[in-house]
Amino acid sequence: MAKLIKGGTIVTASDMYEADVLIEDEKIAAIGTDFDAEEAEIIDATGNYLFPGGIDPHTHLDMPFGGTVTCDDFESGTIAAAYGGTTTIIDFCLTNKGEPLQKAVNTWHEKSQHKAVIDYGFHLMIGEANEAILNELPVIIEEEGITSFKVFMAYKHVFQADDETLFRTLVEAKKLGALVMVHAENGDVIEYLVTKALSEGNTSPIYHALTRPPELEGEATGRAAELTGLAGSQLYVVHVSCAEAVKKITEARSKGYQVWGETCPQYLLLDQTDLEKENFEGAKYVWSPPLREKWNQEVLWNALKSGQLQTFGSDQCSFHFNGQKDLGRDDFSKIPNGGPMIEDRFSLLFSEGVKKGRISLNQFVDLVSTKSAKLFGLFPKKGTIAVGSDADIVIFDPNKKRTISASTHHMNVDYNAFEGMEVTGEPVSVLSRGEFVIKDKAFTGKPGAGKYLKRSRFRSESELKMPVQHR
Amino acid sequence: MAKLIKGGTIVTASDMYEADVLIEDEKIAAIGTDFDAEEAEIIDATGNYLFPGGIDPHTHLDMPFGGTVTCDDFESGTIAAAYGGTTTIIDFCLTNKGEPLQKAVNTWHEKSQHKAVIDYGFHLMIGEANEAILNELPVIIEEEGITSFKVFMAYKHVFQADDETLFRTLVEAKKLGALVMVHAENGDVIEYLVTKALSEGNTSPIYHALTRPPELEGEATGRAAELTGLAGSQLYVVHVSCAEAVKKITEARSKGYQVWGETCPQYLLLDQTDLEKENFEGAKYVWSPPLREKWNQEVLWNALKSGQLQTFGSDQCSFHFNGQKDLGRDDFSKIPNGGPMIEDRFSLLFSEGVKKGRISLNQFVDLVSTKSAKLFGLFPKKGTIAVGSDADIVIFDPNKKRTISASTHHMNVDYNAFEGMEVTGEPVSVLSRGEFVIKDKAFTGKPGAGKYLKRSRFRSESELKMPVQHR
Amino acid sequence: MAKLIKGGTIVTASDMYEADVLIEDEKIAAIGTDFDAEEAEIIDATGNYLFPGGIDPHTHLDMPFGGTVTCDDFESGTIAAAYGGTTTIIDFCLTNKGEPLQKAVNTWHEKSQHKAVIDYGFHLMIGEANEAILNELPVIIEEEGITSFKVFMAYKHVFQADDETLFRTLVEAKKLGALVMVHAENGDVIEYLVTKALSEGNTSPIYHALTRPPELEGEATGRAAELTGLAGSQLYVVHVSCAEAVKKITEARSKGYQVWGETCPQYLLLDQTDLEKENFEGAKYVWSPPLREKWNQEVLWNALKSGQLQTFGSDQCSFHFNGQKDLGRDDFSKIPNGGPMIEDRFSLLFSEGVKKGRISLNQFVDLVSTKSAKLFGLFPKKGTIAVGSDADIVIFDPNKKRTISASTHHMNVDYNAFEGMEVTGEPVSVLSRGEFVIKDKAFTGKPGAGKYLKRSRFRSESELKMPVQHR
Amino acid sequence: MAKLIKGGTIVTASDMYEADVLIEDEKIAAIGTDFDAEEAEIIDATGNYLFPGGIDPHTHLDMPFGGTVTCDDFESGTIAAAYGGTTTIIDFCLTNKGEPLQKAVNTWHEKSQHKAVIDYGFHLMIGEANEAILNELPVIIEEEGITSFKVFMAYKHVFQADDETLFRTLVEAKKLGALVMVHAENGDVIEYLVTKALSEGNTSPIYHALTRPPELEGEATGRAAELTGLAGSQLYVVHVSCAEAVKKITEARSKGYQVWGETCPQYLLLDQTDLEKENFEGAKYVWSPPLREKWNQEVLWNALKSGQLQTFGSDQCSFHFNGQKDLGRDDFSKIPNGGPMIEDRFSLLFSEGVKKGRISLNQFVDLVSTKSAKLFGLFPKKGTIAVGSDADIVIFDPNKKRTISASTHHMNVDYNAFEGMEVTGEPVSVLSRGEFVIKDKAFTGKPGAGKYLKRSRFRSESELKMPVQHR
Repeated sequence: MAKLIKGGTIVTASDMYEADVLIEDEKIAAIGTDFDAEEAEIIDATGNYLFPGGIDPHTHLDMPFGGTVTCDDFESGTIAAAYGGTTTIIDFCLTNKGEPLQKAVNTWHEKSQHKAVIDYGFHLMIGEANEAILNELPVIIEEEGITSFKVFMAYKHVFQADDETLFRTLVEAKKLGALVMVHAENGDVIEYLVTKALSEGNTSPIYHALTRPPELEGEATGRAAELTGLAGSQLYVVHVSCAEAVKKITEARSKGYQVWGETCPQYLLLDQTDLEKENFEGAKYVWSPPLREKWNQEVLWNALKSGQLQTFGSDQCSFHFNGQKDLGRDDFSKIPNGGPMIEDRFSLLFSEGVKKGRISLNQFVDLVSTKSAKLFGLFPKKGTIAVGSDADIVIFDPNKKRTISASTHHMNVDYNAFEGMEVTGEPVSVLSRGEFVIKDKAFTGKPGAGKYLKRSRFRSESELKMPVQHR
Repeated sequence: MAKLIKGGTIVTASDMYEADVLIEDEKIAAIGTDFDAEEAEIIDATGNYLFPGGIDPHTHLDMPFGGTVTCDDFESGTIAAAYGGTTTIIDFCLTNKGEPLQKAVNTWHEKSQHKAVIDYGFHLMIGEANEAILNELPVIIEEEGITSFKVFMAYKHVFQADDETLFRTLVEAKKLGALVMVHAENGDVIEYLVTKALSEGNTSPIYHALTRPPELEGEATGRAAELTGLAGSQLYVVHVSCAEAVKKITEARSKGYQVWGETCPQYLLLDQTDLEKENFEGAKYVWSPPLREKWNQEVLWNALKSGQLQTFGSDQCSFHFNGQKDLGRDDFSKIPNGGPMIEDRFSLLFSEGVKKGRISLNQFVDLVSTKSAKLFGLFPKKGTIAVGSDADIVIFDPNKKRTISASTHHMNVDYNAFEGMEVTGEPVSVLSRGEFVIKDKAFTGKPGAGKYLKRSRFRSESELKMPVQHR
Repeated sequence: MAKLIKGGTIVTASDMYEADVLIEDEKIAAIGTDFDAEEAEIIDATGNYLFPGGIDPHTHLDMPFGGTVTCDDFESGTIAAAYGGTTTIIDFCLTNKGEPLQKAVNTWHEKSQHKAVIDYGFHLMIGEANEAILNELPVIIEEEGITSFKVFMAYKHVFQADDETLFRTLVEAKKLGALVMVHAENGDVIEYLVTKALSEGNTSPIYHALTRPPELEGEATGRAAELTGLAGSQLYVVHVSCAEAVKKITEARSKGYQVWGETCPQYLLLDQTDLEKENFEGAKYVWSPPLREKWNQEVLWNALKSGQLQTFGSDQCSFHFNGQKDLGRDDFSKIPNGGPMIEDRFSLLFSEGVKKGRISLNQFVDLVSTKSAKLFGLFPKKGTIAVGSDADIVIFDPNKKRTISASTHHMNVDYNAFEGMEVTGEPVSVLSRGEFVIKDKAFTGKPGAGKYLKRSRFRSESELKMPVQHR
Repeated sequence: MAKLIKGGTIVTASDMYEADVLIEDEKIAAIGTDFDAEEAEIIDATGNYLFPGGIDPHTHLDMPFGGTVTCDDFESGTIAAAYGGTTTIIDFCLTNKGEPLQKAVNTWHEKSQHKAVIDYGFHLMIGEANEAILNELPVIIEEEGITSFKVFMAYKHVFQADDETLFRTLVEAKKLGALVMVHAENGDVIEYLVTKALSEGNTSPIYHALTRPPELEGEATGRAAELTGLAGSQLYVVHVSCAEAVKKITEARSKGYQVWGETCPQYLLLDQTDLEKENFEGAKYVWSPPLREKWNQEVLWNALKSGQLQTFGSDQCSFHFNGQKDLGRDDFSKIPNGGPMIEDRFSLLFSEGVKKGRISLNQFVDLVSTKSAKLFGLFPKKGTIAVGSDADIVIFDPNKKRTISASTHHMNVDYNAFEGMEVTGEPVSVLSRGEFVIKDKAFTGKPGAGKYLKRSRFRSESELKMPVQHR
């Protein structure tokens, strides 16, 4: 049955206006004000915003890391995402050295296919760019619709690739139409600093931050950007945390390089002092890159406002405080990296960004949804409220206040890094391809309803796009 | 009678999709695909783009300058604009020292009111920021809906204001909700260089460029941006022509300053060597700032692509080659500054920008229309194709080729700076508030049909905008 | 009678070595180790450094300002200078609008000629660059040996010149071989901010700093540097106080522009919070540019170390706290600007710079002496310890500690901004052209012994200098 | 017997004056004008400059490379150096993986000890920073007086070290008092580009330049500088060739990092087009980094002038065109890298730098001699003309013109990259520790007369240096 959302204010990455939205066959059929739609289910959105469903370009669900596994899988993770207003995620397939890429992709299909309650796609890690791996890429792109590849410049002896692999991946990506993603920190020097800190008996969580200083993120970001410019390719820098990295991205873009940057809620709202919390509570705040000195937050907000950073991911990667984070009680380097963020990403940016006047409503939509859809080959199927697009819609009450807490959140993890924080604005109902997954704040979806998304090849924004073929 | 545009591909600053547009009562009533609209006039747009009508934020019609008057008035100028796909212009009211601002505004109302064929608004020049002038501002904003004020940093002894006036204007603009515009060149040094060149017998057009070097534009741009940051105000730099100025704008935006920049077709596509054309033809290429060395063009294109410059104006200011430009045959400083650009602005950016892969279609729309609407208080009435907005729509054939020529253009001027250039893409029909002003490439509008636009106060893009009141 | 200084360690801008110095006829006759000099007076300098006498490129003695006059004249001022290790000063002749430059020069000759105990020269202020003034310049340079001209970008309605005057002065200076100096702050905006602060009842000393924010110094510095580059001329920025200005100087030098910067003790060692001292004590810390936030100090030290700033002046400009500074008790804008610094400049840089490892001994000498000699046409007569140079020598005990205090200093002023501060290193004896002015810490000179210095024209450092003509 | 040089103009890094120089026991005993020195040998230097002997901080004599050996050994190389005005060289000991550092040092002692005609020291390459290697460093510094270590960021699979080795070396150098040198190019990407070029049949010399683009030098330079700042250590970047690298060095120095840069004659005076010379002549111009586009030359000259680069080395590394360079006739990657430059380094900088007004005489001396002495622990024994310093002196005729040619040069190599170029200024006589090695343009030295120099530990320029112990 058709649905008609009435009375809401539609907000896209560029527009804002009051209108009704007619949904038919999973898609947006029409937008107007006086629809004669007697047969449609009427949904009253008066006083609320209608946002395109959030797209989280950076999640790690059901991921093994350091001898343990993230505690949210594709079921709990996507349910939490839906509660938070996110209707699409792109998760990372990790590869193992010496194994075919396809094997990793298959593993991730198994992890996700009967569990996800919202649509999802995959990025794919490239650990070394040998001939066998490069030969697989065209197939992975064509058959799997995986059009973004991640290279790690850190995690020496684990994920880290050398510059030759990074450069080759950039060259291939350009040729094949894919976007290269980097974790930009200098892993060589981090390896040295971590070993040194531990050898000097410095084992507490704060040393996680002190052994990964911002200079090393700035350096690696600049290096990746230079190689991208040289290759004439395209680069997406994940989880930008500091002024040094923003500067390098801005310089690259000024030279006309195709470089984009993502930041995450933790870098905008938390800081390095959180790692010093007592009773090992600092471990809850261990991300890589680490939280930074507080003044970086303003730099990041300015970068969102002025367009120097373009997307907003969660880097969802949850581990229980008890039983997982405490693996590193005697050695900060054994604390699993990451935290739960998939659920609150959307609300946090609205509350702290829009409500506090730091970014506009249109920028908010672009950051949490539209730009990721464009960069990762999902647009205009995802990422907007427009005729013909999937009816992924968030009905959002901009004035509702709620308090974040592990006791009420829907992620399967025993803490929340924003415990006790009040945010303004909350998703009331969330539709995925025209069906409610959240209705009046209650989960109404079902595991397996989420579809795997084969994504389009990367196209430069400046590439001429002729009449759209999305229907 | 309602109209229904069928079969086109709608392009906004963020979206692109195929859909039909229903127009009622001057506005866009609905967008969809299966409208039951038997009573509506059907307009077939198959294979064409539907763009929001162009907004030209920078025109000088019927303007006195250097003892003569621009040869296009509000009638010929707006007709030419309409042919070119522009449905809104914002023209500049020039003030005289010692006279009330209101007098200038009245003069411009007289020039325009029975002549314009499309909608129009006014910017207002501030020559000195004394108490009387400052006291007028609230009235001008409230009664006239003029919410942008221009300060000249050049044209010494004519328009030039000192830094105290610029700063005061910035401070008042912040308080009242207006946007300050600057012509950013160091007029003091230009005065010296011009006098010196003439005294040395250097009278030909190329000396116009040589006496206004890019360092002086960069300097003034940086100065205005610094003062804006200090005042916490907002600034719009008109006609950015060179790398030096782009750099200053980028730096300011990186610091979180609210600074925007406009460039114009001439700076993207022509260069300093044009001023050396024989038989005094160089005079046709006299703009201020002047055309620059050719390598600046790539810097400007990169700035459009990466978002460092945000709008695209024509700086329409036409003078006949015979009878006007030749006032400066023996003295380049007497050549009236400016050229005819209102008609081809839109097509030139599409052809050279989009078709050549330098910017995206969405960026094109933002540059020629949307961003100006937002900055100058016209959004969402103007600047987009969305339900509730004015039905200012361009039906655009992206593949049609035509050759620019003074013999076929509709401006009242005896030359065209792009004579003989082939462009791809042409407006087929143009609607202003739902009525054809151009239909199948023929003018169907009428003088006086264009309405004066009282514009809203400037609101920061990061200001929360609650449910829209445009209807 | 000849003198022989034995046992010291000679330090120049580049060298450091132990050797004896033979002085004859006011000059350095020889440097070696085994002089047969039975007839010479032997001076034992064992364990001490021998530095070239300090050159203070920036003093205001006997200067009228704001209805009062600096309390140190050429007698007390030069005596204090000598105590501190300075053997040459260059003072500023202020001009009045409408009067010939020569008149100002004559006035300053009268102020100084029978009073100075060390050698001295003059800079000359240019208030407006009209034809009469420009015509005087060749004579002033040739006859008076005044080869540096200062233009004020601040002090509106008093000293401030417009950009046309600045640019003309730069052009003339290039032609004639002179160095242009600027006080770089945007006086227009300061005028506005001061008036506004006072109108709001903000009258205390801290508002002196708050109405002259660093953005305005950065802006003006960048403007002056740009005009210099355009003119192909040479510029010396006096009293650089903040990061913003350092950045502009560095950028200019990177482009190959001939731009140099001076800083002063107050900006390295004091900060904006000093202006908030109780009981109007903040008035003692009123300089223009004002003291800045403390973090700027590190930027300035780095700039000295890396060569981005090249000289170190005192900006000596002393006013009694009681009777002069308190003219501004009810209005910060009436507090005479400036402070006593001529005596401690040399020791402060040694103690805080060299002893604390921030700059090298060679850099110290270059900063307090050599570089000023080179830039202002006094080298190699002044500014070094080399055969043929004037025997202006400081015998300096690097380990002696002393406490700065108004009760012991030799300036004629009732306070010292560094009251109670301990410094390491003190001049033991000071020779001016071979005669002691300070001997074993006691003054032995006499008023009128100091000679007026006609300075050479400015020569670019990159100008080939053939065999020297200084004897 | 003592010597007395009369009538010359002494030039140091800071001073310039006419005086006579008395030499006794290998050292400068006195400087003055009226020496009673009847027993001394009188050397007439009237009309000439006296410069401190040149120090070449970067030579490769008798060095194996790519299956061949440089054609100049310590005899022919140092004779040529002496002819050119250089009296000290610092050569590089190359190490082999898995072998002790001492073994490499011993090998270089054998190569040099009975051959050198002027004094010499060694830098030492660090290929990997394992425990064994790090344990040797204190001994190498203490016993051998080798206080500078070089790390290669390029030449993958040959010399290249990873970032962990670079960082460890920086950390150790700081602790022990040594200076780290880097060859800054990204070897990983070069490896890829070279392999790709060859696989595409691009084998001619120009591809040497095209596969080592300036972005890769800029990137590596910035990376090394960032790691240096983080380690709080000290870095010397050898053979800076391009704008990108200069920018990174300038930025690092602005942040207060201890980073210095060296350039070489080839980068100032030759350019990338030389690699395209016919008949494989381009191979003569194969250096790494490669010659760059010509516009970089101006950037490098500005960097010397403004102090952004501090030293001038030859990177002497000569291979015959016939029999060595032609190993790469079918594969540019097999062309031995490097060229003959030890002889003309000094004259070229004087002729092109000083005579053409790009740098001052003092800067010339600092660049070719003094600064290297200071950075590499040889000052004040070497690097200046001052009492107590070694009498290494060049008597230089500034007006003599000569034409560079392989037929007249003294290097043992069959071509000269500057063949046919006229230079102004020539060493007439050269003294090494008071003995003529060149007298009236004829070689008068002897192999083995040059002494090995144990160098002092690195001391920061801002470290307080108390009374000198060099005698």
